[in-house]
Amino acid sequence: MRILLINPNTTASVTETAAAHVRRLIPAEIVPATGRFGARYIASRAAAAIAGHAALDALAAHVAGCDAVYLACFGDPGLLALKEVSPVPVVGMAEGALHLACTRGRRIGIVTGGVLWKPMLTEFVAMLGLTERLAGIRTVAPTGGEIARDPDAALDRLGKACRDCAEIDGADVVVLGGAALAGLAERVQPQVPVPVICSVEAGARAVIAAAGLAAGRPAAPAVESVGLSEELAGLLGR
Amino acid sequence: MRILLINPNTTASVTETAAAHVRRLIPAEIVPATGRFGARYIASRAAAAIAGHAALDALAAHVAGCDAVYLACFGDPGLLALKEVSPVPVVGMAEGALHLACTRGRRIGIVTGGVLWKPMLTEFVAMLGLTERLAGIRTVAPTGGEIARDPDAALDRLGKACRDCAEIDGADVVVLGGAALAGLAERVQPQVPVPVICSVEAGARAVIAAAGLAAGRPAAPAVESVGLSEELAGLLGR
Amino acid sequence: MRILLINPNTTASVTETAAAHVRRLIPAEIVPATGRFGARYIASRAAAAIAGHAALDALAAHVAGCDAVYLACFGDPGLLALKEVSPVPVVGMAEGALHLACTRGRRIGIVTGGVLWKPMLTEFVAMLGLTERLAGIRTVAPTGGEIARDPDAALDRLGKACRDCAEIDGADVVVLGGAALAGLAERVQPQVPVPVICSVEAGARAVIAAAGLAAGRPAAPAVESVGLSEELAGLLGR
Amino acid sequence: MRILLINPNTTASVTETAAAHVRRLIPAEIVPATGRFGARYIASRAAAAIAGHAALDALAAHVAGCDAVYLACFGDPGLLALKEVSPVPVVGMAEGALHLACTRGRRIGIVTGGVLWKPMLTEFVAMLGLTERLAGIRTVAPTGGEIARDPDAALDRLGKACRDCAEIDGADVVVLGGAALAGLAERVQPQVPVPVICSVEAGARAVIAAAGLAAGRPAAPAVESVGLSEELAGLLGR
Amino acid sequence: MRILLINPNTTASVTETAAAHVRRLIPAEIVPATGRFGARYIASRAAAAIAGHAALDALAAHVAGCDAVYLACFGDPGLLALKEVSPVPVVGMAEGALHLACTRGRRIGIVTGGVLWKPMLTEFVAMLGLTERLAGIRTVAPTGGEIARDPDAALDRLGKACRDCAEIDGADVVVLGGAALAGLAERVQPQVPVPVICSVEAGARAVIAAAGLAAGRPAAPAVESVGLSEELAGLLGR
Amino acid sequence: MRILLINPNTTASVTETAAAHVRRLIPAEIVPATGRFGARYIASRAAAAIAGHAALDALAAHVAGCDAVYLACFGDPGLLALKEVSPVPVVGMAEGALHLACTRGRRIGIVTGGVLWKPMLTEFVAMLGLTERLAGIRTVAPTGGEIARDPDAALDRLGKACRDCAEIDGADVVVLGGAALAGLAERVQPQVPVPVICSVEAGARAVIAAAGLAAGRPAAPAVESVGLSEELAGLLGR
Repeated sequence: MRILLINPNTTASVTETAAAHVRRLIPAEIVPATGRFGARYIASRAAAAIAGHAALDALAAHVAGCDAVYLACFGDPGLLALKEVSPVPVVGMAEGALHLACTRGRRIGIVTGGVLWKPMLTEFVAMLGLTERLAGIRTVAPTGGEIARDPDAALDRLGKACRDCAEIDGADVVVLGGAALAGLAERVQPQVPVPVICSVEAGARAVIAAAGLAAGRPAAPAVESVGLSEELAGLLGR
Repeated sequence: MRILLINPNTTASVTETAAAHVRRLIPAEIVPATGRFGARYIASRAAAAIAGHAALDALAAHVAGCDAVYLACFGDPGLLALKEVSPVPVVGMAEGALHLACTRGRRIGIVTGGVLWKPMLTEFVAMLGLTERLAGIRTVAPTGGEIARDPDAALDRLGKACRDCAEIDGADVVVLGGAALAGLAERVQPQVPVPVICSVEAGARAVIAAAGLAAGRPAAPAVESVGLSEELAGLLGR
Repeated sequence: MRILLINPNTTASVTETAAAHVRRLIPAEIVPATGRFGARYIASRAAAAIAGHAALDALAAHVAGCDAVYLACFGDPGLLALKEVSPVPVVGMAEGALHLACTRGRRIGIVTGGVLWKPMLTEFVAMLGLTERLAGIRTVAPTGGEIARDPDAALDRLGKACRDCAEIDGADVVVLGGAALAGLAERVQPQVPVPVICSVEAGARAVIAAAGLAAGRPAAPAVESVGLSEELAGLLGR
Repeated sequence: MRILLINPNTTASVTETAAAHVRRLIPAEIVPATGRFGARYIASRAAAAIAGHAALDALAAHVAGCDAVYLACFGDPGLLALKEVSPVPVVGMAEGALHLACTRGRRIGIVTGGVLWKPMLTEFVAMLGLTERLAGIRTVAPTGGEIARDPDAALDRLGKACRDCAEIDGADVVVLGGAALAGLAERVQPQVPVPVICSVEAGARAVIAAAGLAAGRPAAPAVESVGLSEELAGLLGR
Repeated sequence: MRILLINPNTTASVTETAAAHVRRLIPAEIVPATGRFGARYIASRAAAAIAGHAALDALAAHVAGCDAVYLACFGDPGLLALKEVSPVPVVGMAEGALHLACTRGRRIGIVTGGVLWKPMLTEFVAMLGLTERLAGIRTVAPTGGEIARDPDAALDRLGKACRDCAEIDGADVVVLGGAALAGLAERVQPQVPVPVICSVEAGARAVIAAAGLAAGRPAAPAVESVGLSEELAGLLGR
Repeated sequence: MRILLINPNTTASVTETAAAHVRRLIPAEIVPATGRFGARYIASRAAAAIAGHAALDALAAHVAGCDAVYLACFGDPGLLALKEVSPVPVVGMAEGALHLACTRGRRIGIVTGGVLWKPMLTEFVAMLGLTERLAGIRTVAPTGGEIARDPDAALDRLGKACRDCAEIDGADVVVLGGAALAGLAERVQPQVPVPVICSVEAGARAVIAAAGLAAGRPAAPAVESVGLSEELAGLLGR
C-alpha cells in the first residue's frame, strides 16, 4: 500500500518526523509532501485556512499512484475538501485518531501545543459529531513547532496536561495531538494514569483500516478557476 | 462609514452586482474586492477552502482605511480566520443574514443555488449554533454563477424552493442566499407565503449594526510564512 | 423611523433612562411606553409572566403609527406573543443584543442584576437556539432597579462579573444586560479584557437593522376575551 | 387531599368539565378556579401570555388551604412562575401527562386542538427537556373550545391525528391534550393502534404522585407592584 | 393493586428493605422477587448487564397475577427489555423517581453509592432524554450494599454529596438513589437546603400513577432460545 | 495476533460464518465462541439483554491467551460491560464499523434484518455519540437468522433498503450490519449508488487497528456473585 502523507504546513522537517514515525509502525510505502505556501507552523485559524488550500495543492500534485491519503496535521485543515476531490480515500490525523480513541475509552481527552487550537479543535470535534465523547481539550503554551525543536522541554507540561485531562476532566483515554509530537506519547505515558495515544500512529492505523474498504467518493461538479497550480486547477475542473 | 466588501470568488461581475445592490440600500462607502485566485464560482468544499485563503489575501490587501469588512459570499469562507486577523469588525453574508432573520421568524429556511451547498450550509449553520432555528435548506440545480448569468430562468425554481421551505419545512421566514442572487428576493416574494429576505441586503444591514459597536479582537500569535502575498504574510507575522 | 420602546415593568424612570440612551445613539423617533401593571422591577418568573401581559397591553395601546417595536427589557417578557399580534416588527432587547453579539465573538457572556435572572436567561438563550454560543451568565446581587438607583455602587461588582465571564467562562464578548444599566458598558469596559456590549444600544441597533427588511407576520386566529383593555381585546379579536 | 384546579382561560364550563372528569378518577377534593381575565380559549401565544398572569392571579386568590395546585391547561401557561411563588406543589397538565407518558412509551405523540399550539408545544417540550422523547405533535383545526362545544364532530379528526402520530411519526404512546378534551381519549382509543392517554387524567395522577413527596420551593425576592389584585400583590411582595 | 417488586441483585435483604419501605407508603400489595443469579450488589456495568437477564428471569417467574412491575434497582437494569415482554406496565426506580423529580425542580441532582454508577447513570439519564434537566451526579465511595449494612456511617457523606449537588451543581431537588438507601432521604434532609427525594418512594409513586392508565405494549416477535429458565424461554417464545 | 470472536447469540453456524469471513480478510488467528444460553437470534431488547450476560460468560471462558476481543454481533450487546472487565481490548462490530464508516462518508446509513433493531440501534448510535452522523436506519422484515438461512431471498430487499438510505435519507455510505450478513455487502453493492460496507469486515479492521495501540482498562471493583459460571464469577470477583 502506498500512502500520500500530506503535511500542510511549510516545515519539511515536521513532514519528515511524521513520515519516519509512521514508517516505523506501519507496513506501507509513505510518500511525504509538504505545503508549498503558508505558515511555518499552524497555530491559528488564519494559518489553518491557508493550509486547507495548501493541502489541496499538495494532493493535486502528488496523489497519482497512491492508494490513500493521510492528512497529517492534527486539526485536519481542508479535510472535507480533500475527501471531495480525491480519487482515493483520505483520512485526517485528528479524525482517525479520535475515532480510534473512541473504541478505547468513553471520554476522550485531547492535548496539543498552541493555545489557539482549543477553540479550533472544539469546533472540529463538533464537526465530527463527537462532542459528547469529549472530556476536554488542553493546550500547552509552546506550539507544535516549538515542541518539535525542543521536545524535552515540553515533556513535563504535556504530562501535566494529560494528567489533568484524566483527573480533572474525567478522560479515560488521552490523544496527544500533532505531527510535531510524533513519538512523544510513549515518553509522556509514565506520568499519566490512563492510556495516552499518539495521534500520528493512531491516524496512520485508521488510514490503513479505512483504505482497505471499498472506495467511493462524491462527484464534485467541475468548476473553472484562476491563479491555482495547474494540477489543482485540473482537479477542480474535471 | 467605509466598508470593504470582499467577494472571495474570482468573478468580478458578481462583486459589482453585490456592491451595487448594497450601495442602493446602505448609506456607506463600499470598497469592492474580488478574489485573486480560486474558482470562478464557489459551489463545492474545495472551491470554498481555496476561497478562505483568497478572502484573507483580499483583506490583507485592502482593509487599510476601512471601518468594517463585509465577507460577501453566502457560506462565508474563512469567516473566523478573517475575524481573527482583521483590525476592524468582520461580518459574513450568511452569518449576518441568518442572525437578522432570527428576529423575523422562529424557523428559518435557506434557499440558494448549487446542490453541494446544502451539506456545507448545514455545517455552517451548526457552527453558528443556529441549527435549532433551521427549518430546512433547499438548493436549486443552477449554481449562483449560472443564476447570475440568467436570473429570469431561475426565478420559478427559486420561488418553488422558497415555497417548499414554508409549506413543507415549516419555515416562517426564508433567506435567499448568495451574492449572485442580489435583488432577486423581491422578485421571488410574490410566489412565497412568508417573508423572503435578500442575503446581500440583510448581511449588509448586519455589518452596519455590528460595526457601530465598540471593537475588540483576539490577538493571534505572529507566525512566519512562505509563498503568501506580502500583505498577508505581514498580517500573519504581526 | 418611529420606534415604540416598551418597558414592561412599571417604573417610568427606567423607561426614560433607556429611551434617552437610545435617542443619543440612534437616528429615530422613540415613543416610550411603560407597563400599566405589574412589578416595579422584573426580577423573578412571576414578575416576568405578568410583564408579558403588560407588554401586550402597551403594544395594543401605542403601536398605531409606529414602524417597529423595541421590547426594552432584557429577558424580553412576552416576546413571541408580541411578534404574533404586532402589525410591525418587534425585536427584544436580549434577542437583538445577543444575535448582534454573536457577530463579535464566538462565545458570549451575559452579566445582569438580580440572581433569579440566571435560570430565566438560560432558558431564554435556549429558546433563541443560542445555547452553544453561551460562555456563561453571571448575575450580581443588586437587581436592575437597585442598580438604576445607585449605579456607582454597582460598577465594581459588574466589572468583576464581566471579567469572570472572560477569564473563567471563556467569553470573548460580554453583553451587559438590562434597561436599567443603559450606558454602564462604557464605564465597565476599562476593567474587562474583552468587548463589553450595552444591551440597550445593541438591541436598538438590531431593531433598526430588522425593521428595514420587508415585514410579514403570522396571522393569529381571532379570539374573544374578557377583562382586558379595550385595545388589547381588539388586537386579540381581530 | 385538597387540590386547586386552575383553568387559566375564562370559560367556566371548561373548568367544570375538567374538574368533573378528575373527580371521577381521583380520590381528592377538587377546588376549581377559572381565569378572571383573558381569552375565552387559549389558542395563541398572546392568549397564553395573558393566561400566565391570570393563573398567578387565580393561585393567589384560592391557594389557601390547598395541598397542591393542578394547572389544568395543556401547555401550562405560567407554569414556572406559579411554581416560584406557590406555597404548595404545582404540576401542569402537559408537564405531568408528558412525564407520565414517558414511562409508557419511548416516543411520545401529542394531539390537540388549535393549529398555533404546535410551535408553542414544541417549545414547551423543549423547556421540559423532553424533545428527544417526542415523536411528533399534530393539531386538528378546531380549537379546544370548539371541540368542547361539539366533541362528536371532532372524534374522527382526533382519531386520524393520533393514528398518524403512531403510524407516520413512530409514536408508541399518544397524549390527547387539552382540558376541553377531558374524557375523549377512551372514545378515540379504538381508532388508534397504540395507547392514547387523557391529559386531564394523567396530569391529575401526576399531581397526586408529586404532592405526596416532601415539599420545598425556591424563595423569590419580594417585589413591590402596581395594578394587580390584592392577593397577587401580596404573594409577590412577601 | 398488586405490584411485583423486582430487586435484580441477589441480596434478599435489600429486597426486603425496599419492599417494607414501599408497603409503609403505598396502599398496594407488594410481591417481592430477588435475582436468582448475578452480583450481590450492582456497582459495575458487568454486574448490571447480568442483572438485566436476572430481572427478565424474575419477571417471567412471578408476573402472573400482578398489575404492574416495579424494577426496584436505581439504574434500572434491563428496563426496556422488561417493558418489551411484560404483560403489565413496568416502571423502573430511577425512571420513575427522575420523572417525578422533574415536576419538583428544574435541575435534578442525583446521589448514590458506588463510584462506577456515575458514568452508568449519566448514560441512563441520556437514554431517558433528561440530560438537560440534570444538574449533576455525585457518588459516595461505599456501594449501596455497604451503605445498607451500615447506614449511619454513610449519612454524613451522603449529606455532603447532596449539599454539593445543591450548592455547587445548582440542583434545586436531589434524588437519593438506590434500593439499599430506602428511608435515608428524610434522615439526610436536615443537612440539605433543597428537597431530597427517596428514590424507592418516588419510584413506587410513579408505578402507582402509571399503572392506573390504560395499558398497551409492543409485540415482540417470538424467538427460540436455549439455556434459559422455562418461564423466560416461554416469555420470549410466545 | 489472536482474536477472540464472540457471537453472543446461540447459533454456532452464525459464529462460523462470521469467523470464516474474517479469516479470509484479516491476517490474524480467530478464536470463535458462541453464547451458551439465550435466543437463537437476537432481534429484540429481551434477547439482547440476555446476550449481554452470555457475551460476558463467553469472554470469561475464552479470553485467556487472546490479544483482543471482537464482539461480533451488530448491536454489540454488553459492549461496555465487556470493556470494563476484559484484560485485553474489546471492539464491537457496530462500534468498529460505524467509527470506520465515519471516515468514508459524512452521513451514515445502516441496514440490517429484524424490525425491532431500529430503535435499539438508534439508541446504540446515540450511546456512541454519533447521532449527528446518522442519515437513517432501515430494517428489512427477515431477521439476521432468517437471512443467514436464505441470503438470496433477502438480497433485493437489502439492496432496496440501502438504496433508500442513499436516495431518501441522504446517506453517503451505508453499513450493512449483522454477523449473519457477512459477505453480502459486495453482492448488494451493484444495486446501491454509494459505498456499502460489510460490518463484519469493517468491525474486524477496527479490532486490528485498535488492538495495536497501548492498552489500558478501568479497574472495576471486585464483587461477590451467585449462580454464574466459575470463570465469570472469577472475573467479577478479581
